[in-house]
Amino acid sequence: MFGWASRPQPAPTVISQLTILAPGLLGGSIARAAREKEVARRIVIWARRPEARPALAAQPWCDLAAESPELAVRSAALVVIAAPVDAILPLAAQVAAHLAPGAVVTDVGSVKAKISSEGPAAVGVSAHFVGSHPMAGSEQTGWEHGSAKLFERRTCFVTPQPATDHHALTLVSHFWRDLGGEVATVEPQLHDEIVAHISHLPQALASALCAFLAGKDSSWRDFAGSGLRDTTRIAGSDPKLWRTILQQNREPVLAALRQFQQELSGLEAALSNGDWKAVTDLLARGQAYRRGLRI
Amino acid sequence: MFGWASRPQPAPTVISQLTILAPGLLGGSIARAAREKEVARRIVIWARRPEARPALAAQPWCDLAAESPELAVRSAALVVIAAPVDAILPLAAQVAAHLAPGAVVTDVGSVKAKISSEGPAAVGVSAHFVGSHPMAGSEQTGWEHGSAKLFERRTCFVTPQPATDHHALTLVSHFWRDLGGEVATVEPQLHDEIVAHISHLPQALASALCAFLAGKDSSWRDFAGSGLRDTTRIAGSDPKLWRTILQQNREPVLAALRQFQQELSGLEAALSNGDWKAVTDLLARGQAYRRGLRI
Repeated sequence: MFGWASRPQPAPTVISQLTILAPGLLGGSIARAAREKEVARRIVIWARRPEARPALAAQPWCDLAAESPELAVRSAALVVIAAPVDAILPLAAQVAAHLAPGAVVTDVGSVKAKISSEGPAAVGVSAHFVGSHPMAGSEQTGWEHGSAKLFERRTCFVTPQPATDHHALTLVSHFWRDLGGEVATVEPQLHDEIVAHISHLPQALASALCAFLAGKDSSWRDFAGSGLRDTTRIAGSDPKLWRTILQQNREPVLAALRQFQQELSGLEAALSNGDWKAVTDLLARGQAYRRGLRI
Repeated sequence: MFGWASRPQPAPTVISQLTILAPGLLGGSIARAAREKEVARRIVIWARRPEARPALAAQPWCDLAAESPELAVRSAALVVIAAPVDAILPLAAQVAAHLAPGAVVTDVGSVKAKISSEGPAAVGVSAHFVGSHPMAGSEQTGWEHGSAKLFERRTCFVTPQPATDHHALTLVSHFWRDLGGEVATVEPQLHDEIVAHISHLPQALASALCAFLAGKDSSWRDFAGSGLRDTTRIAGSDPKLWRTILQQNREPVLAALRQFQQELSGLEAALSNGDWKAVTDLLARGQAYRRGLRI
């Protein structure tokens, strides 16, 4: 079910043309990393906002800022759709007729069941779709804030279907590996369950904690120490982006959230009953888990 | 109710002898900062573990590693009890008969109602007690990990009672200011309500999240990105230390936790009902609060 790719090889798989559609923080980081690691000979980018194109064209990691997604994907061996999760399938369908035969299309969406299932039909029969999700990012947005180091040692999920073309899967896996990531090949539904727990639930908790504290005396915030700062860093993320992710992954997130609410009710009961052994056990289980985080 | 001290003055209030009892991370940081800022002419430390005393005595920020708390406090103008919250009042009572007339005793405990109320009687009629709580720390423990910079720009609560001696309050307030902190003078009960929200609830959530995830497939943890890492950093803290803090501040923590559970139930209902406006509103309120954090 799981597969870890080996550590980066000395010689990357060189892609003739890499096209990035709708770059945000991740797309801007992919372009920088691809140039730095010499993963692609040519990097073509299409940005949704026309005013961003001259700025992109001036970057050393952008060989052409295309006027349209259709123009951008022509001649691409690999297309990365870096749009928000709800815009990925529409963009794939929009460019399908303009893809070169054998072109491989992937994405960076945080939710994979629907995209991995409908992606192949969206790109058409002469191209291949393989879903991806690099576990990298920040509370910042925009390609301007990208970093060539963003994927270093970060999990990059690749979520093939049973019918996924083997060579396309290899190309996409090697691509993330060459950018510095650690590739994990996982079924799309399982991916969505995993990220509901390790990414979307923490986001929901950080946002809910901040929303809760926002209702308290405003002076309290200024007293906060580094604990609150770290615990809530991701609550600074873009609300619209996260609304869309929670929409797309609603059922797995709800399941994880409801189970977590039971854990929290257990803590509340232990505090209420003065069951200090249960409180200490929870704190100790939490500490042991935290110490095992590899980053 | 609230009072912010002015920013550090050029000339600190110089204390003839500062004594630190039972130093951990905070006590070790106080000694380092006091030496660096020249806040005390002489720094005397008593460590509970005899084997720590030679190591302490070898530090440039320790003039004497005393054999007992009673010996340590003799001649002290200011005594800082840096023990865990449940050991502060017993230590204060233990040294009371050995304090110099007019000596000032403070502490670093995270919970203040009981300590501020019983501290004056514990230190006796010829000395003064003023509760303190610097909002500084880390998931590390032990005086070896201390840092002279730990209090820089951090809130240092000072929690006087109506009967607190004015000069003692000024001495303690200037002490934290001179170590780099920003002093906030708050009633003890209000302090406990504030920290239940901005410190103890975040700790409970981080620990509960880690304890919850510890029950899932162990491979999932290795996929985690920086979001989970930051959200759960404080879950790495010492379980016994936090058990004691939650014990001492049980009622305010329970009140904050129960209100937070309502916020979380609201999010769960919004997700369940597909009320995306409510979901987005919560995320946006959280983002606005987070952006207003001053650190």
